Amino acid sequence: MPAPATFLGYIDEHADRFIKRLADAVAIPRRLNAFSVSGDRTHREDVVKMAKFMEDQLKALGVQTRLVDLGTENLEGHEIKVPPAVLGKIGEDPGKKTILVYGHFDVQPAIKSDGWNTDPFTLTIADDGQLIGRGSSDDKGPILGWLNVLEAHKDLGIELPVNLRLVFEGMEESGSIGLDEFIAAEHARGKDGWFHGVDAVCISDNYWLNTRTPCVTYGLRGLVYILVEVSGPTRDLHSGVFGRTVHEPMTDLIALLGKLVTSDGKILVPGVDDMISAADDEEKALYECLDYSIADIEASAGAPIALSDDKIQVLMGRMRQPSLSIHGIEGAFYGAGAKTVIPAKVTGKFSIRLVPPQTPDKINPLVVQYLEAEFAKLNSKNKLRVLLEHGGKPWVADIKHWNYEAAIKATQAVYNKRPDMTREGGSIPVTLTFAETLGVNVLLLPMGRGDDGAHSTNEKLDRSNFIEGTKLLGTYLHEVAAINA
Amino acid sequence: MPAPATFLGYIDEHADRFIKRLADAVAIPRRLNAFSVSGDRTHREDVVKMAKFMEDQLKALGVQTRLVDLGTENLEGHEIKVPPAVLGKIGEDPGKKTILVYGHFDVQPAIKSDGWNTDPFTLTIADDGQLIGRGSSDDKGPILGWLNVLEAHKDLGIELPVNLRLVFEGMEESGSIGLDEFIAAEHARGKDGWFHGVDAVCISDNYWLNTRTPCVTYGLRGLVYILVEVSGPTRDLHSGVFGRTVHEPMTDLIALLGKLVTSDGKILVPGVDDMISAADDEEKALYECLDYSIADIEASAGAPIALSDDKIQVLMGRMRQPSLSIHGIEGAFYGAGAKTVIPAKVTGKFSIRLVPPQTPDKINPLVVQYLEAEFAKLNSKNKLRVLLEHGGKPWVADIKHWNYEAAIKATQAVYNKRPDMTREGGSIPVTLTFAETLGVNVLLLPMGRGDDGAHSTNEKLDRSNFIEGTKLLGTYLHEVAAINA
Repeated sequence: MPAPATFLGYIDEHADRFIKRLADAVAIPRRLNAFSVSGDRTHREDVVKMAKFMEDQLKALGVQTRLVDLGTENLEGHEIKVPPAVLGKIGEDPGKKTILVYGHFDVQPAIKSDGWNTDPFTLTIADDGQLIGRGSSDDKGPILGWLNVLEAHKDLGIELPVNLRLVFEGMEESGSIGLDEFIAAEHARGKDGWFHGVDAVCISDNYWLNTRTPCVTYGLRGLVYILVEVSGPTRDLHSGVFGRTVHEPMTDLIALLGKLVTSDGKILVPGVDDMISAADDEEKALYECLDYSIADIEASAGAPIALSDDKIQVLMGRMRQPSLSIHGIEGAFYGAGAKTVIPAKVTGKFSIRLVPPQTPDKINPLVVQYLEAEFAKLNSKNKLRVLLEHGGKPWVADIKHWNYEAAIKATQAVYNKRPDMTREGGSIPVTLTFAETLGVNVLLLPMGRGDDGAHSTNEKLDRSNFIEGTKLLGTYLHEVAAINA
Repeated sequence: MPAPATFLGYIDEHADRFIKRLADAVAIPRRLNAFSVSGDRTHREDVVKMAKFMEDQLKALGVQTRLVDLGTENLEGHEIKVPPAVLGKIGEDPGKKTILVYGHFDVQPAIKSDGWNTDPFTLTIADDGQLIGRGSSDDKGPILGWLNVLEAHKDLGIELPVNLRLVFEGMEESGSIGLDEFIAAEHARGKDGWFHGVDAVCISDNYWLNTRTPCVTYGLRGLVYILVEVSGPTRDLHSGVFGRTVHEPMTDLIALLGKLVTSDGKILVPGVDDMISAADDEEKALYECLDYSIADIEASAGAPIALSDDKIQVLMGRMRQPSLSIHGIEGAFYGAGAKTVIPAKVTGKFSIRLVPPQTPDKINPLVVQYLEAEFAKLNSKNKLRVLLEHGGKPWVADIKHWNYEAAIKATQAVYNKRPDMTREGGSIPVTLTFAETLGVNVLLLPMGRGDDGAHSTNEKLDRSNFIEGTKLLGTYLHEVAAINA
């Protein structure tokens, strides 16, 4: 039972109205980065306004709604209320599966002078069909896609094929404060909890690998972020006066950072790379058939610097292997020009992206032990401290679950293409929360393309991705219902 | 022929008047750092005022003076006149030696809020005799010491034992713009040049090793400052998306910086350490008898981080060995907190302090060749550029010259102690200019102590250093005249 043809036709026919709704949503500016603007009430109210906009839209579509108070956050010393999450509930038919849909209505900051060609909060429709504006792709477009689906069903009098639970939050770009706790608390309430009965989760908040082929995403890497502090003198020293008389913290730190990873990406911390079993032929085939080439990666990086000419190798490096990146050093000279300082205390910063079975709890001790052992070898009189900044577990879903089967079928139905089955190199923490707390299968079903520029200037969503993507979301629900599971 | 007793008595008797003159000089604020304040006319005029102050004082003492226009400098796009140097000439007696005296009347910036206990531009006399104020030790105290010497001789009717040439500049803290060119141009004029007939140079612009024992300084290290730039992608990348897919510039840069120097200071660039012959027992004895201990070094660094417990080893590390310090990285993440960036272009900065026979021309090619060879070993697709920022040759004088003999005798006469014979780890470029351009012996004869805090807050000159130091400068001139050379 694919989606009814009337549904698909309705989406095409009402495309302009859907785009108008996206324009209305984009025009409600955004939440400024909580950490750069202290308690900016104006913008905080914009996010609350966006929550009300979502609630009004949902109510008009007959959805039972609830605004959830997620508590407060501390903004530069002030406790400030976090914008509410907007929940929606449709259907409690025990004969239907229940799908939880997640998305977010807050967006990244944007000002025209950053390099936007158009006002970021006025949705601009380009001649080639690009819908340009902050949030068009991340993540207002996708969440409005769900509204489009509901509207089509309501107007056409088609019954929704599943029970739906909607969770739209306004803090995704600022650490999803309060959301994990809310999910855990509701889950703990058992049968009375808001998430009771959810069979699977669908999140539309990422992107295709490329600009051509839709994808379904079943994995995300985790992360440990580590600070390596080496300190010696009580104040910065002059290299003329102290050069070759004392142990210099920078020399020691550079030696430690130089023992972490090779130029071709191998992680030298013992036990880290070894934790990952090699891919078998079946798994390698998954990467081989992805519509993504070395040329794509190098175009995206802007230079021919891929670690290998072997596409499988490079894609596995991103999707199913850990990676270690050195980000920088705090406390050393960082300006332009020349300064002959011996910095007194320097803190190197690096992170390791994790894949199963790696977890922060397994990786952190290996890193600490290794750094301490390597530092001991230096015979330095300086002091070492290793600080664990934050971490998150990786996530990989079972792609043989009906949830994935439905997403794959829906993609084939709408796009007439088998989707790329991808794992992302980065993290979307709420994915893991849903998977672990609710114990259900989670699926990432993106709407936008790899070049949409989320978090960047001139963010866009292609008109065809918005319209076909809306069809995809609706079709997915019908495919879910059609599977006998 | 030591200095006349009447001269020494005069200095003691007129100490308060000399301190009053220092207070007047300190009260003429200073030249703000040329590179931090664009064309601040007010402060530029303060330095010009200080030049006039010096000229007036010299004229009143019967010195033939000359203000030298040193041209212009570019301050953030504006060509601005450099404060004039003040020259003085006394005596053209062919039967006397001619000593060139150098000092500077500009000072480092200072504002009370940086941590000064008193107004930096009001000379404060502490109970323990410290004369606290910006420039008290660096370098207004020493240049006024020369004026004190002239005043005593004039008032007492004692003939100066040598011909004197005075060079006082107002740009020492900002790169001595125009001075080298002036010295070279005058020297090129031969017999008509202002420096014609100079037999030796005495510079009072550095410090004792400690707070106890006067020193005479006969060497300075040179410098090469090197930038190692590694670039890859055209923009910063996200470590989730690109980690383990591309060669990361930071990984390569850290690998290169890690191959430069060991934690205990050995320079790994082939040929650099090897260029220095080992010290023989006679030379080692020079270091052994210096009044400076490991404890002094560690007190100065604020931590027990000396490279060795062997005093000779550590002092030689500072004075007669090259040193390599890594100062920092431009382009990487340097802030507090955590950021998961892969920086697109990073520039490591390090410098090597040089000792004879090392010169920038000999050292730079070794460094470039080594970095390029090590980078090639990485097999990285990133790009390397090695940039040579600036450099200066080291300087070591012949301490058996009569100039040193006079300084040592004068120190023994005034302080009743044999001076520490020191080499400095840092650089005073004009020293080398005088030595090389004029081809004469140059001597550093400091007035202040190792803890004076030049360039720091609460700069001071001890009253006894100012008064005994004045006696030292005068006595030195008499000892110069007394030597049959």
